[in-house]
Formats: sequence, C-alpha cells, structure tokens
Amino acid sequence: MSDDLRLDPRADEAPDALQEGRLSRAFVAEVAAVLDSGDDDALRALVSPLHPADVADLFGAIPVDARAPLADALGELLNAEVIAELDDYVREDVLEALSPGEVAEVVTQLDTDDAVAVIEDLEADEQRAVLRALAPEDRADIEAALNYPEESAGRLMQRDLVAVTENMSVGAVIERIRASIDPATDFWEIFVVDIAGRPVGTMRLSWLLTAPPDLMVGDVMKREQTLIPVAMDQEEVALQFQKYALISAAVVDAWGKLVGVITVDDVVHIIQAEAGEDALKLSGAGDGDINEPVVESYKARVRWLAANLGTAMISSSVIALFEPTIEKLVTLAALTPIVASIGGNAGTQTMAVAVRAIATKQLTDSNTRRTIWREVRVAMLNGLTIAALLGLGVGILFNSVNLGGVIAAAALFNIMVAGLAGVLVPLALTRLRTDPAVASSIFVTMTTDTMGFLGFLGLAALVGVANLQ
Amino acid sequence: MSDDLRLDPRADEAPDALQEGRLSRAFVAEVAAVLDSGDDDALRALVSPLHPADVADLFGAIPVDARAPLADALGELLNAEVIAELDDYVREDVLEALSPGEVAEVVTQLDTDDAVAVIEDLEADEQRAVLRALAPEDRADIEAALNYPEESAGRLMQRDLVAVTENMSVGAVIERIRASIDPATDFWEIFVVDIAGRPVGTMRLSWLLTAPPDLMVGDVMKREQTLIPVAMDQEEVALQFQKYALISAAVVDAWGKLVGVITVDDVVHIIQAEAGEDALKLSGAGDGDINEPVVESYKARVRWLAANLGTAMISSSVIALFEPTIEKLVTLAALTPIVASIGGNAGTQTMAVAVRAIATKQLTDSNTRRTIWREVRVAMLNGLTIAALLGLGVGILFNSVNLGGVIAAAALFNIMVAGLAGVLVPLALTRLRTDPAVASSIFVTMTTDTMGFLGFLGLAALVGVANLQ
Repeated sequence: MSDDLRLDPRADEAPDALQEGRLSRAFVAEVAAVLDSGDDDALRALVSPLHPADVADLFGAIPVDARAPLADALGELLNAEVIAELDDYVREDVLEALSPGEVAEVVTQLDTDDAVAVIEDLEADEQRAVLRALAPEDRADIEAALNYPEESAGRLMQRDLVAVTENMSVGAVIERIRASIDPATDFWEIFVVDIAGRPVGTMRLSWLLTAPPDLMVGDVMKREQTLIPVAMDQEEVALQFQKYALISAAVVDAWGKLVGVITVDDVVHIIQAEAGEDALKLSGAGDGDINEPVVESYKARVRWLAANLGTAMISSSVIALFEPTIEKLVTLAALTPIVASIGGNAGTQTMAVAVRAIATKQLTDSNTRRTIWREVRVAMLNGLTIAALLGLGVGILFNSVNLGGVIAAAALFNIMVAGLAGVLVPLALTRLRTDPAVASSIFVTMTTDTMGFLGFLGLAALVGVANLQ
Repeated sequence: MSDDLRLDPRADEAPDALQEGRLSRAFVAEVAAVLDSGDDDALRALVSPLHPADVADLFGAIPVDARAPLADALGELLNAEVIAELDDYVREDVLEALSPGEVAEVVTQLDTDDAVAVIEDLEADEQRAVLRALAPEDRADIEAALNYPEESAGRLMQRDLVAVTENMSVGAVIERIRASIDPATDFWEIFVVDIAGRPVGTMRLSWLLTAPPDLMVGDVMKREQTLIPVAMDQEEVALQFQKYALISAAVVDAWGKLVGVITVDDVVHIIQAEAGEDALKLSGAGDGDINEPVVESYKARVRWLAANLGTAMISSSVIALFEPTIEKLVTLAALTPIVASIGGNAGTQTMAVAVRAIATKQLTDSNTRRTIWREVRVAMLNGLTIAALLGLGVGILFNSVNLGGVIAAAALFNIMVAGLAGVLVPLALTRLRTDPAVASSIFVTMTTDTMGFLGFLGLAALVGVANLQ
C-alpha cells in the first residue's frame, strides 16, 4: 500500500511511481526501458505527473550514463525547479546535456539563492559562459552573490523582498503589495526599514491580514527580530533559524542595511545536512554522498585510513614492548585486543555525545565542568559493570583469579580513560577552532588502543606471568 | 565581539548575555550568583531582555539543583514559550517547581502541538492532575492528540487552522480572516476543503494578498498538495517537508478529512534531531543528551558495551586458535590488531555513508546494486593503497618481504570485506525492518575484527612462520 497522498489529478496515469514516499524500483526500471526505446513522448507522459522533487530523485536513481540522455529526452519537463532539487553530483551529469544558453534560461527562472547554488558548482569556464548568457540584471545579482564566501548567508539569501516604512498604514501596505508584487513570488513576512534602509521590525503576513487597515505599520510590527549578517556561516544561520523558530529572516550588510532575505525552506536542507554530517565526519567518510565519484570518495577516505594506519602502528608498538611477557603467556595476545576494543567503544559513545552537544551548542563554557564530571560518573558505572563481566568470564575460562583481576582492572582503567578522552578531545579541538567531528575519533581511538594495550600488558607484567596461570 | 544582532531595545542592560549566539559563561555565573543572593527583582531584570529560547538555554546551563529555584524566582518570565523550548530532561526539573494548576495555565497558552509535547513527558499521575486542571475544550484537544501514537503526525499538528471552500472569493476570504481570526495566531497558508471537509487545495497568504479580490478561491488555489496522514511517523513527516520544501501541510484522518496543520517550525527540530541521531545510534550512545540523568545514560550505553564485549571475545577466540603460530613468532601478536583496526575503520566509513543514504532515502531498491558496486570499487582503491603502505612498512621494519606480503594481502582482504559488510549489513537490517543506525556497527566491527585476525594469522600460518622471519 502506498503512503503517498499527493493530490494530483494526473497521478492516476502512473500509480506506482511512489512507494512509501520514494520512487519505486518498477517505475525507475520502466523509465529506463522507455528511455532506451527512444519513445520520448511516452517517457514524458510517464514523468509528467511527478513533482519536481521526484523528477530530481529519478535522475539520482537511474544509471549514471542514462542521466544526460534522460535530460535530453525530458525537454521542458526538466525545468528550473527540478534542476534546483538535484543532488550536487547528479546535477553535474545533467547539466552536461545542456548548452550554456539552456543553463542560463533555467537560472533566469530561479530565485537568486537557487541560481547561485546551480552556478557555483560549475567549472570556471562554464560559469563564465552561463553568466555571459544571462540578462544584465540577473547577472549582476548572481555575481554579487558569488562575491560572498561559499556557505555564507550572502549565498543563501534571496534579493527579492518586500520592504516598507513604519509610517505606512496596513491598508497602504496591502495596496502596494497588490500593485507591485508578482503573484508568483512567495513571501511570508514583510520587512520594515528606516530611511537608511536598516531593518527596524518585521510583520508576518497573517498580522497584515488580521490587523485593522488604518493602523500604522509601526504600531503592529514586531520590533524584536533576528538579523543575519551577510557573512554569517550557513551552519550558524541554520542554528539561528532553529533556535528562534524563524520562517524568514532579514540579511544585513556590514552597515546594517537590509540586503536580502533567507527563508526556512532554504535552511532546512542545511540543518539536515549539517546534523547528518557528524556521523560521516566522525568516520572520516568525507562528504559521504553515494553519488560522489568513486575517485573522490577514495581520496577523502584514504587519507583518513592512512592516518589511522599510522596511529594503529604507534599503539601496536606498545604490544611489541611486551613481547617477552607475551612469549611466556601467549594467551595474553588473544586477550589484549578485547581491552582495547571495549575502551574504543566506550570512547566512541562519549565522543558522539560530546560532538553532538558541541554542534547544537548544548555544551558550552558554562556547563563544561559539569559535563566532564557527568561523563566520568557514567564511565565509572560502565567500567565497573564491564570489568566485572570480563573479569569473571576470563577468570573462569582460564581458571585464574589473578588473570581475571588483571583484565578487569585494565578494562575499568581503559573505560575511564575513554570517558575522559571522549569528552576532552572534542572540547580541546573546539578550543583550537578545529571541527571536533573531523579529528576527534583518531585521537580518541589512539588513546584507548594505547592505554588498553599498556594497561593490560603492563599490569600483567607487573603481577608476573607466573602468577597469572 | 558579539555576532548577535537581535534588535531588542532592552538588550543594552545585559550586553554580555550572548556571545557568538550562545549564553556567555559570565552571564550564566552572574545569574547563579544573583539567584543565590535571593534578590529576585535583580534576577528578573537580568533575565527579562532574553528571548524565550535563550531563557530555556539558561535553564540548561545552570547547575541541575538551581533549576527549580530559578523557575520559582522567575515567576511570570517563565512563560509558556520558555517551557516549550526547554530540553526534555531540563523541563522535568523545571516543572517540579510548578503545581499542576500552574502547569495547566502554561499549557493553556500553548498551541496544541507544544502543549502535547509538555504533557506527554509527565508522569501518569501528574498528567492526570494537569489535564483535570485544564478548561474542558483544551483538555479535549490535548486528550485527542494524546490518543495518537507517540512521534506521529497527530501529536505534532495544531488544530487551529483556517479552512475555506472553493466557491468563496479571495476578498471574502480576507474579510472572514479579519473578522474571525485572533491576530495573535500565526498561519502561513489557508486550506481549501470540500463539503465533506476533505482538502482539495491550498493558498499561500502571499497569493491571497496579490490575487484580485473578486477571483474565486478555486481559480487561484494550488490543487497539488502534500497531505500528511495523521498516523505518519514524525521522521517521515520531516522528510516530506524537506523533500517538497513545505512551510505548512494539511493533516488528514483515515477518512481523508482535514484535522490539523503541521508547520515547518515544528518539524525543523525533528529534522535536526533525526539527522543528528545517526552518529549517536551508530556508537550505541542512546539518546545522547548531555542533560540525561547519569543512570539513564549508563543503562543505554552499558547494554551496547556488553554486546560489544561479547563480540570482542568471539573475535579474539580466533587469535586463540593461532596461539601455536604466535608462540613461534610473537611479533605477530603486535601486528594482528593493525589489520583488524584498519578494517574496522574502512567498515565504519562505508557504514556511515550507507546509513545516511538509507535515512535520507537516497539509497533505495533502484540503486542498491550500483551502490554496492561503487563501494567495492572504493574499497579496492583504499585497500590497494593501505596494503601497499602497510606491506612496505612492515617489510622494511622487520626486514622480511614475506611478512610484508602477508600483512599487505590480509589488509587488502579485510578492507574489501569491510566495504562489503559496511553496505550489506545496513541494507540487510533495513530489509528486516530494523533501524540500521542502531545495530549495524556491532555486526560490521565483529566481521572486520574476525576477518582481520583470521586473514592475517591464517595466511601467516599457511606461509609458515619460518618463511616470515
């Protein structure tokens, strides 16, 4: 049964396109088959009932070498909305099928922010060709946006917005909107500015509709508003939207002048991407997009694996130090990785929590000490439980109270080390202005591996192999 | 310098409250000091310039045992908006300071969705007491919402909405809104329903303002809209909002009748939380909230650590099988963990990518085979590079071509195993209707550990220790 309830009179023609909110395998296969048959009319009939977002997904779902032919065959159905929704890597493949003039035509139909998102990923020469093909006004807007740093508010904002002054009446504002705004423009809020063009307040459209028409804007508007500096990083913009539950926000330049507006639908995918990035960064998987070319994924991941190879060799050299001990009791070789592994897991847990709390600004200067203390207590409880289990298991299995005691003590020690490293490493990296999600796990794992090996083998050597058998 | 540009005439009184968008340590310390001094007026003067979202953060930042006293001291400043913004665990501490009557008063001021979020976390007897203290109408709304499953659309939706019929004119709709809607209500879209109350279209407020007043609603509304079934899981709701860039969406019951509306600001925190959950789930850190009580964190994490202890003991038993080989060449004991560790890292990378792609519905039936093949190729490239580095290093360090060759082959093998396990395990868990983020890493790590140990020691035994020295 399909969960999908999109109301589209044409949807009957392709009833199986969506299953549980995603394109069905059968539908994608049908599209590929019709594309191969060369019957473009049938293809368009198949695709036309889809929402632009689903057409964009379709490009991601079909084989890579079918993307450009599909783009050709769809013609008008490959509209600006579809292009804006495409995954970055998929868009590269699709745009290859279009001439700079056709790309320019698509770009013209987009809001500034979406147009910039399409153009900023093009190669330098394609970018120039597309910009040349644009109308001077669109070109100026896009070039202005491209002058702001990547991933900044300036790239995200739209330049079309409704701004009025305080001394207009609500009725006059409504008249002005009706007279001057293209009905196709979506907006949710109007901005009130002073004579220098600086924002002084904001009015939601619902207030405009419910307020008596003869009231002055200055008397109904909300003076408190969140202003976004044009250079603010998009991650910070997303946090502001989330924290203050914003639908749209004014963007101001260095002189406090209103220069654009960011709406929540432009921010939602950033919130999602930035939040989801942690898991990928912690594992060193780079962008982690399944549409990324193999060689780029390789480059992103191999650096991390090489770094981990280095740290693994360093930690393992600790084992080499104790070779004489292992030689006398080779069982130790099998037990050592358990102590390291359990510490690694405990460290990863604490680190994931700390990295997440830092990203969402829950973990700040004000509660650092409390959070460290909290993690120490959790580690203590975890350590005691796991040490008891492991010590008992090993003690019984090898019929040696001392061996059980040594491995239990080493596990407790390593889980405590892991709890501390898991919170201190991300905090230290944040102080050093490094993204804790990117580098934490290398340091934490190296610490727990080394301390696991050292703790267990060192204690075993101290107690004496003869006493462990 | 502060990034904060909130326009609040009162903000001058507490200029240091926010630094880089978060509460400054100095401000939190000042609040704690003033709270201790018992001067509630000074405390309220300090806190009153803050946005409700920042007051909510303040409760998270101060020590746990100061939360209830702060709630008492703030009085009116602890309003419904602040309560709605509190972290779930912090809210428990704060609500302890309030009587059921006071909680009921707060709840009355909230939208249904926020009221439900506050009430659903209360203990059963507190919940009953609060519900009893509510006005019958509010109580009926909230009890209706509580009848829907947790984390469903029915809990997220607001019941107040503007619904009109197709045959009204735009002007009449505006008149009706002006006459009947409380100006304090925020809404972004109006819904058009048929005589049975089923949604047939939607109109954004900006269209209402720009359309000629004598046009019929049926001629200007958008017929295509995304309807949210009331039982839909909130994660799925969030995906729909993101995919179709929705600002608000109609919620329908099993008979297709319009019963509520979900707006994007209620969904943004779900998008953020669901996306950020992956890193926590992959590490077995449970909720991963730094405000979670220590014992609950312990319970969530220790189960995972115990499961990992079990799998670590199983994989280590592979090492035990090869003790005779290690006894002859104890160096193998130091090298074995390197092969396992490198496989674990490669597996974690692939797994993080696969889990993310499954969560965002990028990885579907249609591209499963292509994605597996993609990961195999990335693993091949990674494997060849890391195997070459490791083989060369070990070969030179131990002056043995054979030992270098054995460890290189084992590393290549394990990285290939890791690439396959990293994508197949999450896919298999998804087929089994299990959340791949929760259970994947146990299986992947067990596979890479076991295959790392087996591959390296097995090959070493096969080649013969005498040939490795």
